[in-house]
Amino acid sequence: MIFAKVVGTVVANQKDEKLEGSKLLLCQETDAEGNDYEDDSYHVAVDAVKAGVGDFVLISYGSSARMTSSTRDSPIDAVIMAIIDDVELTED
Amino acid sequence: MIFAKVVGTVVANQKDEKLEGSKLLLCQETDAEGNDYEDDSYHVAVDAVKAGVGDFVLISYGSSARMTSSTRDSPIDAVIMAIIDDVELTED
Amino acid sequence: MIFAKVVGTVVANQKDEKLEGSKLLLCQETDAEGNDYEDDSYHVAVDAVKAGVGDFVLISYGSSARMTSSTRDSPIDAVIMAIIDDVELTED
Amino acid sequence: MIFAKVVGTVVANQKDEKLEGSKLLLCQETDAEGNDYEDDSYHVAVDAVKAGVGDFVLISYGSSARMTSSTRDSPIDAVIMAIIDDVELTED
Amino acid sequence: MIFAKVVGTVVANQKDEKLEGSKLLLCQETDAEGNDYEDDSYHVAVDAVKAGVGDFVLISYGSSARMTSSTRDSPIDAVIMAIIDDVELTED
Repeated sequence: MIFAKVVGTVVANQKDEKLEGSKLLLCQETDAEGNDYEDDSYHVAVDAVKAGVGDFVLISYGSSARMTSSTRDSPIDAVIMAIIDDVELTED
Repeated sequence: MIFAKVVGTVVANQKDEKLEGSKLLLCQETDAEGNDYEDDSYHVAVDAVKAGVGDFVLISYGSSARMTSSTRDSPIDAVIMAIIDDVELTED
Repeated sequence: MIFAKVVGTVVANQKDEKLEGSKLLLCQETDAEGNDYEDDSYHVAVDAVKAGVGDFVLISYGSSARMTSSTRDSPIDAVIMAIIDDVELTED
Repeated sequence: MIFAKVVGTVVANQKDEKLEGSKLLLCQETDAEGNDYEDDSYHVAVDAVKAGVGDFVLISYGSSARMTSSTRDSPIDAVIMAIIDDVELTED
Repeated sequence: MIFAKVVGTVVANQKDEKLEGSKLLLCQETDAEGNDYEDDSYHVAVDAVKAGVGDFVLISYGSSARMTSSTRDSPIDAVIMAIIDDVELTED
């Protein structure tokens, strides 16, 4: 899973039928403290936990993205499956 | 999922039988605004949403690429599963 | 599988129901000797072997992360499935 | 899928029993015009379409590599599933 | 699949129960001639073909790593599924 912040939404009317009702969110990968990386790369993920713009989330990739009740058998490879409250880092 | 623009087609006569009737499209990854990256890397994906050259699309990878009705059980690892109308970016 | 050291925990209250009871651990990839890489990149993985902060572990990715009894059918793509006691390197 | 050119063969006598009869081909990734990349990285893939040295092919990765009749349930993660006749690039 | 050389072993007593009896080998990726890459990155894979230190092998990744009789349903994402005898490279 990667850390990301939700920064926008993706609108797509012409899409696979299994995506009907799904919310496609634009996310930006962050470090463990929620800070953006400099490269500004984006990730598109389906929301499974009622996440919204500004939320600090976890994105799961691959076949695991289809393991939520709202994404089962859907042709998507990334899902937001948790909203992060806190990251407790014990530096070594 | 990644953002991409459809830029061409791939013609292959000798192929796995499950690919018969599939349209192989040449795509170029873009940023969230639909702008090409400079490295000119290409992605080959099967079309599942009647996409055409010039369309701004989403590509899904891995086993999820087989989750559309036209790609089920096919030996392909990338599918175009949505045509993008708009990306609403709320900068942070 | 990659080598990693557990360096913290991730707290998420709003999450997919299959994650209830799972422990999300923050990990840092290491080399075969357990030394951190310089880039400070983090990995988030679910614990399946009662690992704790400071442990030197193996993380498995993708659908294989769902193959432990505690992660089956869960929307997670990384699992700690072993705690490393020793790495015997026979240099060539 | 990636573009590649078949450049050799891999001989392995001691292998998983499901690989018996499979042809392991050495491939080099190319761009959409079939030109080699400079880094000389190699890809090993199982042939599913009677490809030979010199052919310009498509390689599919991951679980999709097991979706051809000759690779079903085999422990391989890359398959040649099409021989390319032409790539029609409509520059933007 | 990638080319690798077996360079050591990984000892882990506390591990998922499906890993009991599995041999975890430390591998180093090589080029097609069996030469190490300079970056010294390591790969950990389960052995399915009685490979040993010094052997030149093929590693398969992802769900395909679970397709051997000794790794079925195991939470591992990399398996050694062939020992290479020869790589015949026909330069272009």
